[in-house]
Amino acid sequence: MSGKNIILFVLLLFIPVSLAAHFLEWGDLIVFITAGLAILPLAAWMGTATEEIAVVVGPTLGGLLNATFGNATELIIALVALNAGLVDVVKASITGSIIGNLLLVMGLSMLLGGLRYKEQTFQPIVARVNAASMNLAVIAILLPTAMNFSSLGIPAKTLQNLSLAVAVVLILVYGLTLLFSMKTHAYLYDIGVAEIEAEGLPHEKPNVLLWSGVLLVCTLLVAIESELLVGALEVATSQLGLTALFTGVILVPIVGNAAEHATAVTVAMKDKMDLSVSVAVGSSMQIALFVAPVLVIAGRIIGQPMDLDFNPFELVAVAVSVLIANSISSDGRSNWLEGTLLLATYTVLGFAFYFFPVP
Amino acid sequence: MSGKNIILFVLLLFIPVSLAAHFLEWGDLIVFITAGLAILPLAAWMGTATEEIAVVVGPTLGGLLNATFGNATELIIALVALNAGLVDVVKASITGSIIGNLLLVMGLSMLLGGLRYKEQTFQPIVARVNAASMNLAVIAILLPTAMNFSSLGIPAKTLQNLSLAVAVVLILVYGLTLLFSMKTHAYLYDIGVAEIEAEGLPHEKPNVLLWSGVLLVCTLLVAIESELLVGALEVATSQLGLTALFTGVILVPIVGNAAEHATAVTVAMKDKMDLSVSVAVGSSMQIALFVAPVLVIAGRIIGQPMDLDFNPFELVAVAVSVLIANSISSDGRSNWLEGTLLLATYTVLGFAFYFFPVP
Amino acid sequence: MSGKNIILFVLLLFIPVSLAAHFLEWGDLIVFITAGLAILPLAAWMGTATEEIAVVVGPTLGGLLNATFGNATELIIALVALNAGLVDVVKASITGSIIGNLLLVMGLSMLLGGLRYKEQTFQPIVARVNAASMNLAVIAILLPTAMNFSSLGIPAKTLQNLSLAVAVVLILVYGLTLLFSMKTHAYLYDIGVAEIEAEGLPHEKPNVLLWSGVLLVCTLLVAIESELLVGALEVATSQLGLTALFTGVILVPIVGNAAEHATAVTVAMKDKMDLSVSVAVGSSMQIALFVAPVLVIAGRIIGQPMDLDFNPFELVAVAVSVLIANSISSDGRSNWLEGTLLLATYTVLGFAFYFFPVP
Repeated sequence: MSGKNIILFVLLLFIPVSLAAHFLEWGDLIVFITAGLAILPLAAWMGTATEEIAVVVGPTLGGLLNATFGNATELIIALVALNAGLVDVVKASITGSIIGNLLLVMGLSMLLGGLRYKEQTFQPIVARVNAASMNLAVIAILLPTAMNFSSLGIPAKTLQNLSLAVAVVLILVYGLTLLFSMKTHAYLYDIGVAEIEAEGLPHEKPNVLLWSGVLLVCTLLVAIESELLVGALEVATSQLGLTALFTGVILVPIVGNAAEHATAVTVAMKDKMDLSVSVAVGSSMQIALFVAPVLVIAGRIIGQPMDLDFNPFELVAVAVSVLIANSISSDGRSNWLEGTLLLATYTVLGFAFYFFPVP
Repeated sequence: MSGKNIILFVLLLFIPVSLAAHFLEWGDLIVFITAGLAILPLAAWMGTATEEIAVVVGPTLGGLLNATFGNATELIIALVALNAGLVDVVKASITGSIIGNLLLVMGLSMLLGGLRYKEQTFQPIVARVNAASMNLAVIAILLPTAMNFSSLGIPAKTLQNLSLAVAVVLILVYGLTLLFSMKTHAYLYDIGVAEIEAEGLPHEKPNVLLWSGVLLVCTLLVAIESELLVGALEVATSQLGLTALFTGVILVPIVGNAAEHATAVTVAMKDKMDLSVSVAVGSSMQIALFVAPVLVIAGRIIGQPMDLDFNPFELVAVAVSVLIANSISSDGRSNWLEGTLLLATYTVLGFAFYFFPVP
Repeated sequence: MSGKNIILFVLLLFIPVSLAAHFLEWGDLIVFITAGLAILPLAAWMGTATEEIAVVVGPTLGGLLNATFGNATELIIALVALNAGLVDVVKASITGSIIGNLLLVMGLSMLLGGLRYKEQTFQPIVARVNAASMNLAVIAILLPTAMNFSSLGIPAKTLQNLSLAVAVVLILVYGLTLLFSMKTHAYLYDIGVAEIEAEGLPHEKPNVLLWSGVLLVCTLLVAIESELLVGALEVATSQLGLTALFTGVILVPIVGNAAEHATAVTVAMKDKMDLSVSVAVGSSMQIALFVAPVLVIAGRIIGQPMDLDFNPFELVAVAVSVLIANSISSDGRSNWLEGTLLLATYTVLGFAFYFFPVP
């Protein structure tokens, strides 16, 4: 058993611990931390199970599966939080996931990869197509914010209708990017797929039934742990002296995206920057084009309407992250300094969110 | 006679219809729609006449002619609206023309071209020079907005003086870009010119007198139809349930730029992306560097002072359009997905302007 | 003696003249102008002295010396102004130095170089690494502004703490960029260094003692003249009908950066665009990553706390300058039109700062 798997099995222990903490009332802070730790191995296995099943069902259905379940942990936590009425935390975790993937994940990958290899390269073509989709997504989900900030205020109903219309366009675009990458221009992505398949997957045919069971169980457990996490969130973060904004932007996305973090950094250290960059950029693209619109639509259905009117400073942070990530990734080369610059940007944004006043 | 010409001749019928609608008082909505349709063939022939005369008078004078009359329809409609005191509609149509050329025209070209050809290429060098000029122009015409928004308010007189100073700089820069593209660095643009000349122009020498007559008559008729269009604009759009902002940003530019739309899309489907992209980017550059400053100066002269203080959300929309258009065009390649992304951005911006509240 | 040196020696005469103007009370306007002129030759010799000493002490220590003393004039003027409590002027001169280097210096270099050579090229790799550092620096120093503008207002103490935290990150990043350019990836910068050494330096070993003396005397004299300049600044600029903002953004940086201006333009006219662009971009990077954070920390120590909360319009101006400078320099080519576009942007920003109302 690999070192990674041992860690994951040990982390599983936090499932009973978090449940005990909840039912025996050991305090919200302990529930929050243990539930957060318990989600990490579950998220990792959901990722593995999705990839194993994808191998068997073929590239098209497999691609769809990956595209839908790729940010499942993120989506489940957000849905639970939305259901609990923590709309601001959900919005903050969307911006935090985008920022985290572009700055923290890509930054760590480039830094740790760059400490081993003087210069690393990756295909700029895929990076550019992704960057353009990201730009659209970011523009779209932040338009309502810009609109509200630049006018004298917009009725809540109008903002919700606009957000719903934007959400529908984004999901359509997401479908079209899948069509592009899996059908009409699949050859552009060939190298990436080959690397994903070569990366740690067994050569014998995976047992679909087994992995479907794993996926089902993990999904259920993630949902349960998310309930604990979300239920304890407000008290725990105020005990830590943190604002809801900081928790949503910095803490929640780290838990939700831990699996991508680990994958992207691991492959970067093996000099597979193509894969590393597409995990980071692809994940933030999925958040913006799929997770965010699904949450808007789900919120409408479950009666917790969520518009896309973010805190204006979140808009600044996302815009800034996309700009610097694009400028660093557009030439298809990376080195340790570029990784450091991304991490420094993340740090500085973290400070700003830490100091941001509660309205 | 080609299919295109038949359509244009049929559309000519809307000239008498619109006049009848106006004088027989059939209602502003009908006047607005028929005058809009009547302008389309006139704009197309003005474009053809300009190009025919340009062939005869030689590259330098011809280039100047194209540069001045290229957006004549747009300019006439705007001057009529300015004279009628519809300053906000004029400003909105400037931003709408820039957005429309970069997103709608370029998007449709890349989508329809991309459905026929897997990947299309164009010269990135010209695209970059144009992009830099566009950036300056957009920055310049939006500075007064940024200044007004970021301060506690600026006296109207100061805004007008600043706008006039900016307008003079922009017209000087426009002159210098012509000098660059027609004299000192004409070789960079050679391919484009050759393609324009090869594109549907007859090989015998055009009759200058005939085409000058066509140009004169069409200009007069466009001016008359613009009067009808502008006179009916406010009542018609409120009957359609639209705001003046939406009309100015979305509807007016579609009428004013229809000729460029048709050209850019037609040549894109013949895989002449160089020409298609330069029509789209060149037209938006002309709006920003020539039409907008001319309107500021004209407004001063006719006593309808127009500053460059736009709605802050227009600033956001233009900035966003320039960013995404630059990021998609900078590599000199296009495919159907990139076209779709531009169109999706246009759609989302359209929603936002539709929902934007009247102050 | 070269023509340049004759001019510098003549300008030295303004040292006694400015002192006379100050002590004989000839008026603040004359003190301001003569002290400004007196600083020019001192700044030039400080630059020469630093480079001479750098040659002797070897590349590493020499690089550090250049990195620390490269903007010494700028830093001394700012420290004197900060000590006099002119916090807004100091902030304005930081944004003005960034804008001035990217638009005025780079613009003049590209224009004057481009009038001699049809197309000039430079290494885009170094330009890109610098651009990414610039992006981070600009983002970081402008975050507090964005935060203050997008919230309902932030306590002064919070802004100072955030600014201090940001300053520490920036100085760390500055150290890492030095490590990158002088140690781990020095080969990327080789050409530049060779050109700097070949540029006007004598082949015999420089006299360290002599040049250290020159450096010391010039530094002292710059400090004295800065006292005169700053002391006369407020009265003189109001006599000229200028605001403190305009003086800080436009006038002070021209005095402080005159040496870089001269170097960058001179080498551009010799077709050494690599060196010219790195002087301009490197200098603005140094301002953002080193001078600005040092001022924040120094302000804390001398009891004149300076936060990084700029005028929102300064944020717009810097963002716009970085965007257009990046878009023009990213392809590694330049021509006279690109230089003109940078200068036009500078002119338009200058107009805007001239008209900007006093709060």
